[in-house]
Amino acid sequence: MKQSKMFIPTLREVPNDAESKSHQLLLKAGMIKQIASGVYSYLPIAKRVLNKIEAIVREEMEAIDGVEILMPALQPSELWQESGRWPSYGAELMRMTDRHGREFALGPTHEEIITSLVRDELKSYKKLPVTLFQIQNKFRDEKRPRFGLLRGREFIMKDAYSFHATEESLDETYQDMYQAYSNIYNRVGLKFRPVIADSGAIGGSHTHEFMALAEIGEDTIAYTEGSDYAANIEKAEVVYTPNVQYSAETALEKIHTPGVKTAQQLADLLGKRLDEIVKSMIIKVDDRFVMFLIRGHHELNDVKVKSFFSTEVVEMATEAEIEGIMNAKPGSLGPVGVTKIDIYADNAVQDINNLAVGANETDYHYINANAGRDFKVKTYGDFRFILEGEEAADGSGPVKFAEGIEVGQVFKLGTKYSEAMKATFLNEQGKAQPMIMGCYGIGVSRTLSAVIEQHHDDNGIIWPKSITPFDIHVISVNPKQEAQRLLADQLYTDFSKNYQVLYDDRQERAGVKFNDADLIGVPLRIVVGKQAADEIVEVKVRQTGESFEVPVSELATKIETLYQDLA
Amino acid sequence: MKQSKMFIPTLREVPNDAESKSHQLLLKAGMIKQIASGVYSYLPIAKRVLNKIEAIVREEMEAIDGVEILMPALQPSELWQESGRWPSYGAELMRMTDRHGREFALGPTHEEIITSLVRDELKSYKKLPVTLFQIQNKFRDEKRPRFGLLRGREFIMKDAYSFHATEESLDETYQDMYQAYSNIYNRVGLKFRPVIADSGAIGGSHTHEFMALAEIGEDTIAYTEGSDYAANIEKAEVVYTPNVQYSAETALEKIHTPGVKTAQQLADLLGKRLDEIVKSMIIKVDDRFVMFLIRGHHELNDVKVKSFFSTEVVEMATEAEIEGIMNAKPGSLGPVGVTKIDIYADNAVQDINNLAVGANETDYHYINANAGRDFKVKTYGDFRFILEGEEAADGSGPVKFAEGIEVGQVFKLGTKYSEAMKATFLNEQGKAQPMIMGCYGIGVSRTLSAVIEQHHDDNGIIWPKSITPFDIHVISVNPKQEAQRLLADQLYTDFSKNYQVLYDDRQERAGVKFNDADLIGVPLRIVVGKQAADEIVEVKVRQTGESFEVPVSELATKIETLYQDLA
Repeated sequence: MKQSKMFIPTLREVPNDAESKSHQLLLKAGMIKQIASGVYSYLPIAKRVLNKIEAIVREEMEAIDGVEILMPALQPSELWQESGRWPSYGAELMRMTDRHGREFALGPTHEEIITSLVRDELKSYKKLPVTLFQIQNKFRDEKRPRFGLLRGREFIMKDAYSFHATEESLDETYQDMYQAYSNIYNRVGLKFRPVIADSGAIGGSHTHEFMALAEIGEDTIAYTEGSDYAANIEKAEVVYTPNVQYSAETALEKIHTPGVKTAQQLADLLGKRLDEIVKSMIIKVDDRFVMFLIRGHHELNDVKVKSFFSTEVVEMATEAEIEGIMNAKPGSLGPVGVTKIDIYADNAVQDINNLAVGANETDYHYINANAGRDFKVKTYGDFRFILEGEEAADGSGPVKFAEGIEVGQVFKLGTKYSEAMKATFLNEQGKAQPMIMGCYGIGVSRTLSAVIEQHHDDNGIIWPKSITPFDIHVISVNPKQEAQRLLADQLYTDFSKNYQVLYDDRQERAGVKFNDADLIGVPLRIVVGKQAADEIVEVKVRQTGESFEVPVSELATKIETLYQDLA
Repeated sequence: MKQSKMFIPTLREVPNDAESKSHQLLLKAGMIKQIASGVYSYLPIAKRVLNKIEAIVREEMEAIDGVEILMPALQPSELWQESGRWPSYGAELMRMTDRHGREFALGPTHEEIITSLVRDELKSYKKLPVTLFQIQNKFRDEKRPRFGLLRGREFIMKDAYSFHATEESLDETYQDMYQAYSNIYNRVGLKFRPVIADSGAIGGSHTHEFMALAEIGEDTIAYTEGSDYAANIEKAEVVYTPNVQYSAETALEKIHTPGVKTAQQLADLLGKRLDEIVKSMIIKVDDRFVMFLIRGHHELNDVKVKSFFSTEVVEMATEAEIEGIMNAKPGSLGPVGVTKIDIYADNAVQDINNLAVGANETDYHYINANAGRDFKVKTYGDFRFILEGEEAADGSGPVKFAEGIEVGQVFKLGTKYSEAMKATFLNEQGKAQPMIMGCYGIGVSRTLSAVIEQHHDDNGIIWPKSITPFDIHVISVNPKQEAQRLLADQLYTDFSKNYQVLYDDRQERAGVKFNDADLIGVPLRIVVGKQAADEIVEVKVRQTGESFEVPVSELATKIETLYQDLA
């Protein structure tokens, strides 16, 4: 394809508001352009790469009997009422009203539509299992869109849904999907880890996220080197092994602690370590309030709290709410004398006694507070984030942390939607049962970004062979020189027979052309310059930085060898 | 692909509300399912056909240097304000408001987005021309969605936009597009005609529609057999050749015509032919009223009236409006004595005199009314629909009429958007000029419907080879018979190497399988039945109805020959 006919508006400057490397490079390489906050156009280079990613996704889905369909973006609110998500999905659900006053959602996901599609048709166990997938633009009204394509409001997803008569059948498809996802990410050149994840608002019980490792990951992964264990830290289980450090119980004592608001300040004042202090916090769970106790060096994990209470609605209480309940201000909270609300504590709180805690009175704390004697803990549990170096839940050794970008997720949905929407089938005994469902998503435009996060240098993108927009970039350094132009024309025509070739035929300075070529990152470059008259060109390999002077007579063989060797 | 894993919910009954043949067959063959009025899911068979149509469109676009991009569905209202279309587009534009209160359109077309995309980048004549295209779901809030995919509210379009420095360059791309569109429709197997069309709300001057001929066409085409002349009748020019039929002028006379409301009634009363009567009507053009005179056998063409007045807003005056202006009721209108509003007349009105017209008084008409003496015509012009048999505008003979479905349109937009949105480039003299634009649409989901309108029989769809969902349908009549099942399995595996094969492996009655196969309409069918034990199968050709008994040893050759011969 001739570059003069393409539309690749490269930039020289890094745009100010581009926070991530992929966002910067997508803009600099002229691949995307913002239309509104979190809403982008994909320009020709990006579209070519997306088409290749989509082709790989399609192949792997079809290899496990996935069947492609296409559902609409417009989703009638009635279906979301049936599933119960119309009121609960919140501000991220984009909504619109048609000319007749009927309400629609712009699909962020398609559980409701697909369930309504199959419920009238798959009425017998004989017709199950079925796996359907689509590749499509999705809509989510992110509060703060950022990182370019990584957190946008209109984005490309592959979503798949499977329907089963038995749990075993779901297990099988789940495993197939897990493998297909691994194949897809390997094929597009991503370093990734499947991690145990939280099932969140979508419902369901068992789920893995596929995390591409990256500097700017929005998620942290806890993994070990001793096994394939990996979990989103939101979900990484802390196995409680008692590590008791008790001293003799002494009398509860209220002390004056002027200006002390934080656990660290209290530890400093008392000459203790941070982990010897216990933090108290008031949490709003649905419509009631509870207190949580956590050791000073730990952090409360709200995903675990949500999971413990089986709710989506968990928030820190506001200052006003705290004053209303505790008659005290944040910074001086503690469990002593608290009876109006339940107290929960992280397991590790059991390991120490004679605790320093807030006295529910500004500038006062207790020391030597003890559970049982001075306050009552309703339940101890795993309510905190794991720390780097703690033992992994599978016993495979200490966890390490890595940053990751979620590029996909596989879910066992179970019967959440089929029960709510009455999607039943007759089993072998002729009895109506709700279908058992799985759902499986891949962020296609996110995957594009994640690949760039992992494949670039200071000069631009370095495409993996599998999804490169072009195989070869032919550059005529100075098309005004007839020898260069004719040779470049010839090479473009010849190599186009076996490769996808981008041909820089523009009347631009050599420096501009080379800069653009580095930015765009095509793996093999043939530079037709001054030696064109002698039938010699330069070949550069973007992935390795190597370059060669090659006589035109040997060029086809050289390119073939280099192409074979590309990653 | 095994039919047991697919999702093809065929129907036995014709759905009541399916008005067109394609709508009925899309539903019966299990290809689409309605989600809301005018909003459909494309099921596996439909998606496979769409993918093939899209691949053909992509190839033909790329062959004329079209470059693929993908713009978002969400379009900020600011851009539509710039073009002026936010207020003028009306209720068909779907609109939504995001969580921050910003307004968006769901794109029915992308002139605003594409113009904003290129205006900062294509600043020199050296970078022009450029042609960009995309394939994408579009949104239009049709007042009355109908005919299934033919008039939906969310539908698949290929839209392309070209940018030029000169009119000549636009002409060239317009011709290329015209040819590419012809190639596309030929390749998907459509009988079609490119017709001269109205440019309507999108603006621009020169445009052709591509009409697929069909029984239920929403448009009528006037064409001739003497040339490639074809025009939408909205636009088909009537060349005025005087055909004067004057009699001696006689005195104006008011006559009593009790109960006469229509031209036909008046003709009957007077013992005249319908074409000897002149109809008068009051039309609202923007905010003013005018009278139109048309001969009794002709119909006023509002597209021509809009074009004459260069406006989009032309309506029949209401009864109340007519009474307000004329002090008379519809059914007795006429030009005699009318001075408050302008009178326009169709050219053919000049051919007769001593006219019978309304007297602006209920139950009274004039006879022997004459222009000049009794009323004043401001302008004669071409304001009516052409009649079948009248001479075509290119002089190639009498026009015939045919019904058509609009499957595509090519437009010379000119500078309407580039001027409004300040998309300028520097020409060779360094002077800023608005870019000259073209735009080009193909209704992809409409094309799918149009193909079915043209390719079916009473039993179902008959796919053209180029876009068939599968090449071969292998049917095992009774999979419980081991010989049948094993042979069918074997043929499925073997033929899948060179063809796209659908394999009916379902435990269903033979009648169900054959019915479904006819509905789905795969071109070649291999039926593995009772003769499987003797290594004999039946081959059926859907397009011709032929069937053959073929020994398995000769099957590959037979299929190859039949496949070559398919249309």
